[in-house]
Amino acid sequence: MSKLPDINKDFSQWYNEVVYQAELVDESPVRGCMVIRPYGYQIWENIKNIVDKRIKETGHQNAAFPLLIPESFLKREAQHVEGFAPELAVVTIAGGKTLEEPLVIRPTSETIIHYMFARWLHSWRDLPLKINQWCNIVRWEMRTRPFLRTTEFFWQEGHTAHETEQESRDEAYMMLQEYTDFAQNYLAIPVIAGRKSEAEKFPGADLTLTFEALMQDGKALQMGTSHMISQSFAKAFNMTFQDRQGNQAYPYLTSWGVTTRLIGALVMTHGDQKGLILPPAIAPIQVVIVPILKKGIDPQALYDAAQALADSLANIRVHIDRDDTKTPGAKFYSWELKGVPVRIEIGPRDLEQQQAMVVDRLGLGKEAVSCTRIGAYIDELLARIRKELFDRAYAKRESMRYHSAHLEDFGPRLREHNGLYQTGWCRSPECEIKLKEYQAATRCLLEEKHFEICFACQKPSISDVLVAKAY
Amino acid sequence: MSKLPDINKDFSQWYNEVVYQAELVDESPVRGCMVIRPYGYQIWENIKNIVDKRIKETGHQNAAFPLLIPESFLKREAQHVEGFAPELAVVTIAGGKTLEEPLVIRPTSETIIHYMFARWLHSWRDLPLKINQWCNIVRWEMRTRPFLRTTEFFWQEGHTAHETEQESRDEAYMMLQEYTDFAQNYLAIPVIAGRKSEAEKFPGADLTLTFEALMQDGKALQMGTSHMISQSFAKAFNMTFQDRQGNQAYPYLTSWGVTTRLIGALVMTHGDQKGLILPPAIAPIQVVIVPILKKGIDPQALYDAAQALADSLANIRVHIDRDDTKTPGAKFYSWELKGVPVRIEIGPRDLEQQQAMVVDRLGLGKEAVSCTRIGAYIDELLARIRKELFDRAYAKRESMRYHSAHLEDFGPRLREHNGLYQTGWCRSPECEIKLKEYQAATRCLLEEKHFEICFACQKPSISDVLVAKAY
Repeated sequence: MSKLPDINKDFSQWYNEVVYQAELVDESPVRGCMVIRPYGYQIWENIKNIVDKRIKETGHQNAAFPLLIPESFLKREAQHVEGFAPELAVVTIAGGKTLEEPLVIRPTSETIIHYMFARWLHSWRDLPLKINQWCNIVRWEMRTRPFLRTTEFFWQEGHTAHETEQESRDEAYMMLQEYTDFAQNYLAIPVIAGRKSEAEKFPGADLTLTFEALMQDGKALQMGTSHMISQSFAKAFNMTFQDRQGNQAYPYLTSWGVTTRLIGALVMTHGDQKGLILPPAIAPIQVVIVPILKKGIDPQALYDAAQALADSLANIRVHIDRDDTKTPGAKFYSWELKGVPVRIEIGPRDLEQQQAMVVDRLGLGKEAVSCTRIGAYIDELLARIRKELFDRAYAKRESMRYHSAHLEDFGPRLREHNGLYQTGWCRSPECEIKLKEYQAATRCLLEEKHFEICFACQKPSISDVLVAKAY
Repeated sequence: MSKLPDINKDFSQWYNEVVYQAELVDESPVRGCMVIRPYGYQIWENIKNIVDKRIKETGHQNAAFPLLIPESFLKREAQHVEGFAPELAVVTIAGGKTLEEPLVIRPTSETIIHYMFARWLHSWRDLPLKINQWCNIVRWEMRTRPFLRTTEFFWQEGHTAHETEQESRDEAYMMLQEYTDFAQNYLAIPVIAGRKSEAEKFPGADLTLTFEALMQDGKALQMGTSHMISQSFAKAFNMTFQDRQGNQAYPYLTSWGVTTRLIGALVMTHGDQKGLILPPAIAPIQVVIVPILKKGIDPQALYDAAQALADSLANIRVHIDRDDTKTPGAKFYSWELKGVPVRIEIGPRDLEQQQAMVVDRLGLGKEAVSCTRIGAYIDELLARIRKELFDRAYAKRESMRYHSAHLEDFGPRLREHNGLYQTGWCRSPECEIKLKEYQAATRCLLEEKHFEICFACQKPSISDVLVAKAY
């Protein structure tokens, strides 16, 4: 294990190293595909469990649709095929024979799910249809990075159909709200939610909602999206229902998803020079107990005490480090690298005094805690860690958030300083495209209106917009 | 919804109808691929949750490996490629370009996981490696049937590496035991466990363990397998470790899995003329409450009572049927089709008397139960249903289990009567192949020895074997 690159000087290299050294992922022999190792996969399982519960509580049901989609399905919706065609992986041979019609590996499942919705939907009484799928997705990306952009990734994709446009709008906004609550309360990542511009919308959506976070290097990350899907999908798949007046009508559709990219967001938001820092809600190990073995002291007594401590921490994910080949120092290093929020050290003297040393990963303090009150202490400490992680990330983001009226001012600054720039915009694509010169893009439209004029053309602004470089 | 085909006269058609009518699956537009609908997917989620817990409790960790595998990987192990080559789906085009090396969609993941094991394994201290993956699999099958044999299916695949052959043997047998416990205690399916013959082994295994159940039509179903994998895989992937003596050694490997086929097993083991019968442990709805609305009676009072009843059933998956477009009779029909183990009816007179009618799906009886003791009553009833389902399936199996010394006797009988035939076998492939004439095969080798001679050649038998037609 080599030292991590300097997080302040070379954030990108730091990221590439830390995800491997902390054993979240490994490279695979398949271009752009990652192997998610057990420690990384447990984070994903914890994310899944929480998100899945919220998806079900808001009235959706899980189902499974085929991995492979007839190529012709994608072509039924013009914008959709244009958006995804360059990224498709195509199966042309199966069972030893060339297929009559090639099958694509799903780059997203709107088309095949809408085909099924059309079969299932007859009357307004069948609405709303509220379906979710947890699955793998393949998009042939040019440049890949673990979690942030990979050829294969994992996600959930919700797909719903509604009687009225208003209902579909409410659904899209509700899921956006669920996601932002999840990001802030469980991942401890402050996010900004809003609409995408026309150019940044999902291929085939009428409206794309996004929630964005700012990474430590000042680049924005799209954490997830929620869409109102164009009715052209319903038309392309003959998805009609008999409405309350007895007429055939097209339903209003939504889709929304979050991916394994959230793990990358966690790493880039909270990590430090020592490695990961994981928010307690999704940390595979919330507390690691390290018995401090000393020569001449029976290790069994320490292990027994460690086990008793672990047993007293109800509902906490605890690991006792029983590795007898490493020094305590090497163990501390390794658990810090892996971002375990709390470490408990227990040595011979602690044993005598019926106490343990509690150390947190954020450097809030180190305290000797009596074994009798350690359960309550840890509960309180984990809550404090979540809050502190959120507050630090919030402060960091705000320190990189700027207001600027003119592209000629913030454009050159964007070259030097990454960050989130709030400005005014007339909403014309001609103005938006000028951001490309600075490798930046609009991230999301805001409701508020600080600026009266557009950052580029000086004509009246419709509302403010956030601009940044992005992952 | 049309009447189900006669389960006794045309079991196969009954199966094909019931899985669709009960809304477990739907046909997809992709050949041989199924859409698992929410009701079917909830069964799979319940199976997954229980199996996943057992996999973790026995020391395995989940991870994720790529969907796509370089074609050359499969060729490294001769038997493996021979076994899977005819069933592969091959990606030849990606990102708009023809790939230099085609990628196959995993038909199983031994090769790519062994490649990664070789990277992770250095010393005996790294052993055992105990990894599991929940994922989708594609095998281009000629004839497909929902759940039993589909082009895409879902499974878990465990993969482990061990220091000694004995440890790998213990692992393979332990997982077999976990599976059979699961099948019998949760799915209420009686199974027979044992070794597969050389001809029936997994391509590339030294030893394949299987657990088999007999369906109601007397055909056997392989429910899952656990393998000791040939060391030729370790050699093909240069998977070595430094042993305790400091020498380079090859580890001993296992793999094991169960699939969405288990849902087919449930349907075919427990179903009856009315539809599915689901064991309580995996039923998406364990208890359905049907308020019996009557003209002139305020429905709200009934719904309130139904809700109060539901609230009193802690830890039970309850659904209240609030559909006001159907008669009670139509509702009963539909919930019976879907196999819900217990129905509670509550009408105006029940309301007065503070009771509810409890009816079970097996026809054990119908009883008026006072609301105060309904929680305890339902707990006991669900346990009774599990036991009764198991006992019925066991009795049914035993009624179709025969002992017979000679193929000339049981061969012709196999043509007329499906069933499980126990006989003696010398273990020669020449004798085994004679079963093909009767569309039968060896299902598993038994430890016991009832028969002294082989069913075909009359030479001494090594041990008994079970013979049947199979799905």
